[in-house]
Amino acid sequence: MLIVPEREIADLMTRDAAFAAVEQVFAAMAADKAYNFPVVREAIGHEDALYGFKGGFDRAGLTLGLKAGGYWPNNMDKRGLINHQSTVFLFDPDTGKVRAMVGGNLLTALRTAAASSVSIRHLARKDAKVIGMIGAGHQATFQLRAALEQRGFEKVIGWNYHPEMLPNIEKVATEAGLPFAAVDLPGMAEADVIITITSAFAPSLLAEHVSPGTHIACMGTDTKGKQEVEAALLARATVFADEIAQSVSIGEAQHAIAEGLLQEADIAQLGAVINGTHPGRKDAAEITLFDGTGVGLQDLAVAAAVVDLAVAQGRAIEVDF
Amino acid sequence: MLIVPEREIADLMTRDAAFAAVEQVFAAMAADKAYNFPVVREAIGHEDALYGFKGGFDRAGLTLGLKAGGYWPNNMDKRGLINHQSTVFLFDPDTGKVRAMVGGNLLTALRTAAASSVSIRHLARKDAKVIGMIGAGHQATFQLRAALEQRGFEKVIGWNYHPEMLPNIEKVATEAGLPFAAVDLPGMAEADVIITITSAFAPSLLAEHVSPGTHIACMGTDTKGKQEVEAALLARATVFADEIAQSVSIGEAQHAIAEGLLQEADIAQLGAVINGTHPGRKDAAEITLFDGTGVGLQDLAVAAAVVDLAVAQGRAIEVDF
Repeated sequence: MLIVPEREIADLMTRDAAFAAVEQVFAAMAADKAYNFPVVREAIGHEDALYGFKGGFDRAGLTLGLKAGGYWPNNMDKRGLINHQSTVFLFDPDTGKVRAMVGGNLLTALRTAAASSVSIRHLARKDAKVIGMIGAGHQATFQLRAALEQRGFEKVIGWNYHPEMLPNIEKVATEAGLPFAAVDLPGMAEADVIITITSAFAPSLLAEHVSPGTHIACMGTDTKGKQEVEAALLARATVFADEIAQSVSIGEAQHAIAEGLLQEADIAQLGAVINGTHPGRKDAAEITLFDGTGVGLQDLAVAAAVVDLAVAQGRAIEVDF
Repeated sequence: MLIVPEREIADLMTRDAAFAAVEQVFAAMAADKAYNFPVVREAIGHEDALYGFKGGFDRAGLTLGLKAGGYWPNNMDKRGLINHQSTVFLFDPDTGKVRAMVGGNLLTALRTAAASSVSIRHLARKDAKVIGMIGAGHQATFQLRAALEQRGFEKVIGWNYHPEMLPNIEKVATEAGLPFAAVDLPGMAEADVIITITSAFAPSLLAEHVSPGTHIACMGTDTKGKQEVEAALLARATVFADEIAQSVSIGEAQHAIAEGLLQEADIAQLGAVINGTHPGRKDAAEITLFDGTGVGLQDLAVAAAVVDLAVAQGRAIEVDF
């Protein structure tokens, strides 16, 4: 079996490869060729950790396995380790034997960034010029970097609960040669694309902050109770999701569903747009909203891609297991 | 992180170590110091395979992780590989980082054998002389070998759906210097201990086949619909389980519960007997029955034990992950 350690991922994996992997697996999900298993997520009662498994099988890509790991909130303070720790295990779907073990930390950041990026490619207006960021933490820099490749953006605007973190995303804008401006939330009306990437439990972006024609990618809400945007915004928008079952239960749509502002049947799979079975954006005035909850198949897809790259470059560790 | 490949397990792992690991974790479960996560089990629609994850956390032993794998029914015919394929992954509960990867095939056989063996140590009459085997496949040989170490058995009797397989268990008896006799099911009345280890969907052992004072370990039923013994036998016996939630849903007890012959509250954890919080066998006439469904914590416990042995003997492969 093959091992690709965490330290190799940064050199091996590209945003292009992550984009292609995530786009393909979203397409396979919408074509019923790939599905996610029930998620296991446990508060284990030790170190305040959340631990679990996200598995799935992609019959199209023949990718089978799981991401295992979770959130250890004391890691950084106690040990200088990052708090999110995960590992991806791939299995041979023909035999059930383990095929590869891959460090999952950077991959998780890349596949989450790729998801909003895929949504922008398929749903944002072609002439989008201004991108707005709600959130300015570590993950926000990944989201912005990937998003900037999708349209000819000319300006980045940003808002964060902690404004002192905005230089994180300003730096990404500057590296891309783009001007950056901190805005208040009503200032988001200038944006053609908005990415929300916070871990908030109350909405910041309201429906009135969003202009017609905007595409919004909500990437922070992956748990019951979390919320980034006002439920009324989902009622105003055409809503897409990576996986509808997760969107309505742990994603941004949970609130609009609970308030009766949205029905599960109103939500489309982003993969259907990729496959051409959903027409996608109707016109230049439509607000589109992608509810990205994060599925195990994304992790498997990027891990399989990085294993291929590692093998091609002779950098996979082979263990006779 | 450490790797212990499948090929090393036979040399490293002992029945004693498996027994100790399983006994400890059953005790921890009954003391609410260890718990199993929800089981994921999926028919993936490829190669007729069943694939899934059994995870858990033992706060007492600080063992966290999962067994991943399943059943690939075409492996042997198509590829000369065994049909059950599994791998155990252990995580550091302090950090969430992967700690070890261990071949899980032989370990699964050993931990299943250890479970019935633990039940015999704690529930069978001290003066048990005759052990009866229902089932004579590969796993039956593991069960019998482990069981013979628990009491001063003087004779082995056996029954199987396919009598031509009985030499499998006769061989184990002979190696232990014990006489073996094939019997019909009523002949099981001679046994002081009975182990059932088939994958049947209808009962073979009936209540009338069992004498007072017998201990029965039902080890084959781990799925909805499977059944090895008549439900009336559970009504006649004092019932113990590895995990009560599994016993009533996918174990032998599912049928007695469905027929109203047994209540969930009638079932005790084997670990409570180990801990001394349940008195165990009342008298020489009581029939005791252990419903062994197989839990992820058993896999983690034996895997952790084999990692310790591999490290001590310098046989673990170390990978800088």
